Amino acid sequence: MKCRVCRDPAVIKIERHNANFCATHLQRLCRDQTAKAIKDYEMFGPDDRILVAVSGGKDSLALWDILIELGYEADGLYIGLGIGAAGEYSDESGAYARSFAADRGLRLLEVDLVAEYGYDIPNGSKAAKRAPCSACGLSKRHLFDKAAVDGGYDAVATGHNLDDEAAVLFGNVLRWQTEYLGRQHPVLPARNGFPRKVKPLVRLGEREMAAYCIVGGIDYILDECPMSAGNKHLAYKDALNDIEVMSPGTKQAFYSRFIDHAAHRFVDEDEHGDAVLSDCISCGAPSSNEICAFCALVERATQPVAAPTRRKREKAEHS
Amino acid sequence: MKCRVCRDPAVIKIERHNANFCATHLQRLCRDQTAKAIKDYEMFGPDDRILVAVSGGKDSLALWDILIELGYEADGLYIGLGIGAAGEYSDESGAYARSFAADRGLRLLEVDLVAEYGYDIPNGSKAAKRAPCSACGLSKRHLFDKAAVDGGYDAVATGHNLDDEAAVLFGNVLRWQTEYLGRQHPVLPARNGFPRKVKPLVRLGEREMAAYCIVGGIDYILDECPMSAGNKHLAYKDALNDIEVMSPGTKQAFYSRFIDHAAHRFVDEDEHGDAVLSDCISCGAPSSNEICAFCALVERATQPVAAPTRRKREKAEHS
Repeated sequence: MKCRVCRDPAVIKIERHNANFCATHLQRLCRDQTAKAIKDYEMFGPDDRILVAVSGGKDSLALWDILIELGYEADGLYIGLGIGAAGEYSDESGAYARSFAADRGLRLLEVDLVAEYGYDIPNGSKAAKRAPCSACGLSKRHLFDKAAVDGGYDAVATGHNLDDEAAVLFGNVLRWQTEYLGRQHPVLPARNGFPRKVKPLVRLGEREMAAYCIVGGIDYILDECPMSAGNKHLAYKDALNDIEVMSPGTKQAFYSRFIDHAAHRFVDEDEHGDAVLSDCISCGAPSSNEICAFCALVERATQPVAAPTRRKREKAEHS
Repeated sequence: MKCRVCRDPAVIKIERHNANFCATHLQRLCRDQTAKAIKDYEMFGPDDRILVAVSGGKDSLALWDILIELGYEADGLYIGLGIGAAGEYSDESGAYARSFAADRGLRLLEVDLVAEYGYDIPNGSKAAKRAPCSACGLSKRHLFDKAAVDGGYDAVATGHNLDDEAAVLFGNVLRWQTEYLGRQHPVLPARNGFPRKVKPLVRLGEREMAAYCIVGGIDYILDECPMSAGNKHLAYKDALNDIEVMSPGTKQAFYSRFIDHAAHRFVDEDEHGDAVLSDCISCGAPSSNEICAFCALVERATQPVAAPTRRKREKAEHS
């Protein structure tokens, strides 16, 4: 198995390109594909300051590395979510993010949910009666937006890769959630006080990102989030992977042809696009309600847990 | 396991309805769901004459049975395609169709590709350098249309069930084949000299159709078409079935929400909709070319097969 570019021994075969790559040319491929996505979708320019949403996983650390290698000014933001027994999954994730930044002399901003907002995802989502992935997504979106606006960044970049985006697209298509389909794009422009959001890894798969980290000596947290078990997106990824094995390139075509040929057909559903928003009376963030969804979550997530009703208590005692 | 309706012992559990049914109420369910599809999508009225495309498989025989039970005037059309070693798969399929019609005193029209047009699907598709499923589909569409127009039928009804339509939709969505998406509907109105085409079983799954035949004593050909091996639609069905197990009802929602909320967004792509067609100079069928696609297929499918080139002959001799 030889590298398509230099004929040196290859470290990875990428079926959808029907080609093998050595470590050096895998890195070049990942950087080139990221640069192409940034250019094709007009994500940002050479003078823009980027805030990378860093989780400590392979995608976000690879993204940060690639942006730096491509010459962009990119800082990281890590959010401590308090996930895992005694928050240890989050602690470990944070350690990888800090170590990556320290080794390369990069600037890592940090926000800690427990210390600054008084809740963690496992308990807060329960108290707020919200699915953990939903409470987590809402918290992260709000805090990334806030940090980007406060820090004067031109865009928030997330590490969503092709597998992630294809699985989300598949889920949206299975239910024809037209309002989500209208918003699924690798670039969301800044508007209404929200910063621009970009996904520079949409042309790269999960396997390539893992390989990119391994050959580049980027240490990342290997475990999936312990709260993601049973998440439907994992099943959507499996289903797409089965089809990808039969027809390599299907995922890439599914996603990129959607963006090029179908996404605009759903845009009229994006009713929030031009909505006039006011400032959340609690935090000042743009919001369609008096209190923004994040502040409402914080309020519910930090309330004292109500004593169980008599019926629930009896049920618990007998189970 | 008891019938949801009458509490008698049930013969089938239908997960997406979260309910069990006895033989009698399974039959009623299938007839009701078919009647609902006919009504909701305005497929045809009580006085229309229907031509059922009959293959000898479970879906088309169940459809014919249901239409008769619902009181419609429905004749069948069987096309001998010459599939299988010495055409035996087609011969067997035809025998099931004939026996079904004879037992019930129904009228079955027949067309035989070999006797009337001089080719069968396995050899004809090879000679015409076309995939078998493509040559078969083209042949069937043309001959069903012709029989419906010649016989003055108001609609051609096919036995495509929910699994079939969801798999076709999935394939079209994976490649965002917008022109096909614009045409995927349970009713195609009559136009340009083509008859109306309807799919009354779109609210019923493969398993229900098999069970309907079994409890009603409808004998049908069990084997899949021997030429369908490797057909991508089988993989699409598998992928959707995996997701259906996790979330019963996904297939139904995927298909029906597409029809209700998304299909119209692709209609502008259907360029052939209002095209002015002329008569095929060979058979008189409406066509956008001088010779229609079917007559062109017949011409190529019946041409003498060219002698193999020297290179191919040598290769064959050494293999």
